[in-house]
Amino acid sequence: MYKAAALVSPQRISIEKREEPRVGKSEVLIRVKFAGVCGTDVSLFSGEYKVPLPIVIGHEFSGEVIEVGTEVEEELVGKRVVGEINNTCLAYRKEELCEFCKRGLSNHCSKRTVLGIISYDGAFSELIRIPAGSVHILPPEISMEEAVFIEPLAAAIQAFELAPVNKGDTVAVVGAGRLGTLVCAVAKTLGARVIAVSRSNWKLERAEKFGASGVINSSVEDPVKRIRDMTDGMGADVIVESSGTPQGLNVALELVRPRGTVTLKTTCGLANEGINYTRAVVDEIRIQGSRCGPFDKAIEMLSTWEIPVRSLISHIYHLEQVEEAIITANTVSKVIIDLDSKG
Amino acid sequence: MYKAAALVSPQRISIEKREEPRVGKSEVLIRVKFAGVCGTDVSLFSGEYKVPLPIVIGHEFSGEVIEVGTEVEEELVGKRVVGEINNTCLAYRKEELCEFCKRGLSNHCSKRTVLGIISYDGAFSELIRIPAGSVHILPPEISMEEAVFIEPLAAAIQAFELAPVNKGDTVAVVGAGRLGTLVCAVAKTLGARVIAVSRSNWKLERAEKFGASGVINSSVEDPVKRIRDMTDGMGADVIVESSGTPQGLNVALELVRPRGTVTLKTTCGLANEGINYTRAVVDEIRIQGSRCGPFDKAIEMLSTWEIPVRSLISHIYHLEQVEEAIITANTVSKVIIDLDSKG
Repeated sequence: MYKAAALVSPQRISIEKREEPRVGKSEVLIRVKFAGVCGTDVSLFSGEYKVPLPIVIGHEFSGEVIEVGTEVEEELVGKRVVGEINNTCLAYRKEELCEFCKRGLSNHCSKRTVLGIISYDGAFSELIRIPAGSVHILPPEISMEEAVFIEPLAAAIQAFELAPVNKGDTVAVVGAGRLGTLVCAVAKTLGARVIAVSRSNWKLERAEKFGASGVINSSVEDPVKRIRDMTDGMGADVIVESSGTPQGLNVALELVRPRGTVTLKTTCGLANEGINYTRAVVDEIRIQGSRCGPFDKAIEMLSTWEIPVRSLISHIYHLEQVEEAIITANTVSKVIIDLDSKG
Repeated sequence: MYKAAALVSPQRISIEKREEPRVGKSEVLIRVKFAGVCGTDVSLFSGEYKVPLPIVIGHEFSGEVIEVGTEVEEELVGKRVVGEINNTCLAYRKEELCEFCKRGLSNHCSKRTVLGIISYDGAFSELIRIPAGSVHILPPEISMEEAVFIEPLAAAIQAFELAPVNKGDTVAVVGAGRLGTLVCAVAKTLGARVIAVSRSNWKLERAEKFGASGVINSSVEDPVKRIRDMTDGMGADVIVESSGTPQGLNVALELVRPRGTVTLKTTCGLANEGINYTRAVVDEIRIQGSRCGPFDKAIEMLSTWEIPVRSLISHIYHLEQVEEAIITANTVSKVIIDLDSKG
């Protein structure tokens, strides 16, 4: 038997005792060590982001492989690992792939389930079962706590995978929350000049530690004027919209230069209030949706660069406290859940 | 003295007699032969697209150079030409360029005026004065009537300049109006499979003549279902949104495949009703604004390929009939104005 925190209805978590799962032939079973609480979890919990319930939420985690399926390499047992968020045809090593997996777009696998989001129980649980193709072994220099940041760091990297950034470009990050902070770090390692925009001084101070060389407190300064002043009147080359609110795109469209890029990282589940189409057309703006990213690059970046992800962790909770953890996550830095605190 | 049709207030055109303009040292004076009525002219006339008035509208034209400035090559006099729509630092051959012209983004010149749209009188006029760097000489195989389509054809080409299309890609064109029809032709010459979506059968028939191999009448069929059926359930690789309405983006987002592109060509001046952010993020859609395009490529395409642009012309009016011409343009194929009909 093991315990899992299921979201049974909006704003209601139930701690359930469950039978140990049977491991499929191409799957592995992982004892979860730490799981991170993400903005998406907050939206799922609140009910703004609607998915079929009940579901065990949580998709950022580290752990140890304790069992493998008949078709999986035995050597994986005992390894410290993280797991991808998308369960795809490719991850399951299926013989017949869907059209997306065939085309190398397996993050968009049409048959995918998504850990803790779409039809698949996630990581706020003592045990998690995932396809072997989703597993990444941790190098020794990454601790179990730090490994929780691999999934969000990969998502931050993805902001620049579809619309690349050039060295010396000005990247403005709108919303310096957990993800925005990691986006600052990634943009900095890619050689960009990073400007963080937020209404909160403590978030801006944190962003500076993660690579922002300029900060704008948008509750006391006009970000449009400030960004223009910083860019010879042009606007920023790239805006990463990670505000978590539907208003963020409208702000971003004011800050970006003609022919620039606005990358969207917000999945709040709400429609925005309408954008000024004509502005996007006349200035030939690129608005690029961006979701999950490459785990291998995130592991490499975390191993190579001094990204102080550990300093982000402000609160650690136990499994029984998942509800409190999610509610707290709304207003603090990074909350993680220790699934093994009594072990 | 010469005559020009000025938009003095929304929905009011005044035919004015004016003094012949003085030609600046880096400018040319052109006797306009034909000018095309574009959807943007219709929006400017209606008042939905707001610009400072009065202004002579019209930005698609062909004509003959009759005078050149002191710093312009004399050989241009007598040449059959078309002119770019943006008057930029580069076009004026200025010694000091703005930041955008310096960076090769001269279509976004921060000091630009725009023919018939922003602070510069356009082509619904017997004479037009433009910077010499905006002039393109017509090859003999392009007639003066056909040349009116060079500006909109360049705009159609631009749909695929910022977000390129691959051979064999499925391109769905939402809105088969004048611009949408040209987009069909361009997508076809680039090797795409072209599907036109419109509520009008006559527009769909016209789109077929311009390269669409599939057509969907969205007033009687569900375009989402049809596009899925045509693309192994994936959605189209590229959607070009040329509906001219703010609802077009929401339709386009339903038709595009994950990681696909929605190119916006609509400049109606209205905000949309709000888009589903989360969908754009989760499916990593690229929404690409796109405006004016490369005249050289349009001239080459019109010279090389059999694009039956002449068949688009349904009505020809005189200068005195500009108001009627614009009102008519709302509901018919292509309206052009013959500025030299009494010459």
